[in-house]
Amino acid sequence: MAEDHTGLRDMNERFYRALESLDLEAMDVLWSHERWVRCVHPGSDAIVGWQEVRRSWQEIFATTRWLRVTPTAVDVTVLGGVGMVACSENITAANEDDVGLAVAQATNLFQRTPAGWLMVLHHASPSPVQLTSPETGSA
Amino acid sequence: MAEDHTGLRDMNERFYRALESLDLEAMDVLWSHERWVRCVHPGSDAIVGWQEVRRSWQEIFATTRWLRVTPTAVDVTVLGGVGMVACSENITAANEDDVGLAVAQATNLFQRTPAGWLMVLHHASPSPVQLTSPETGSA
Repeated sequence: MAEDHTGLRDMNERFYRALESLDLEAMDVLWSHERWVRCVHPGSDAIVGWQEVRRSWQEIFATTRWLRVTPTAVDVTVLGGVGMVACSENITAANEDDVGLAVAQATNLFQRTPAGWLMVLHHASPSPVQLTSPETGSA
Repeated sequence: MAEDHTGLRDMNERFYRALESLDLEAMDVLWSHERWVRCVHPGSDAIVGWQEVRRSWQEIFATTRWLRVTPTAVDVTVLGGVGMVACSENITAANEDDVGLAVAQATNLFQRTPAGWLMVLHHASPSPVQLTSPETGSA
């Protein structure tokens, strides 16, 4: 059980490193390639099936110049062969035109397979942003 | 397997009927009362634990006069003891002041228990709304 928690935290961490690195090959390894896997990017419609999910990452990576995503409040629940990892995503992103800050709430689901935990769902939704001024330390 | 799919569709349907009916007692029966169950309402932070989740429904019901939620594109996946039901929520809501239309993408998770499938996650996020004019049938 403790092993499952560690494994799931590790997979979640690897997912955000792949995202930050704009690394499609790492996504290939992290995700299950089933036709029913799902992805909801913040404020977007659901994407179903690995080929479509992969294409969405490819498009995001193609239009992103620089991305930092720091997961906080990471919460792991093991439900038999399914691992639910919930977290807040603290996002700083730059594309060609500008830089944006955002916070999203994520539910990440992983399925236990002979090859280890594989991602089967990423659902992220916009969260009310609480920005802290670096000078005053207050909101 | 077919039984699981039918049971999960039924639970998902019951969840939306409870929501439309602003029926907290029905939510009590549908949801698992574990301390780790989670709920993300559209555009909001995550709520963790049944008592907090229940309170959030209570607050929504107290400030809602009238609510219709029609789930479409319902997609059921059974992963051992976990049922993932994804759908689009087509929402019409009225509070004291006005009426709003919205579409949300939902991931609903249910856990298999001796008492049947119980809800353990509701994650809903705002979706781009495509409103169709009833006169022209076009967007």
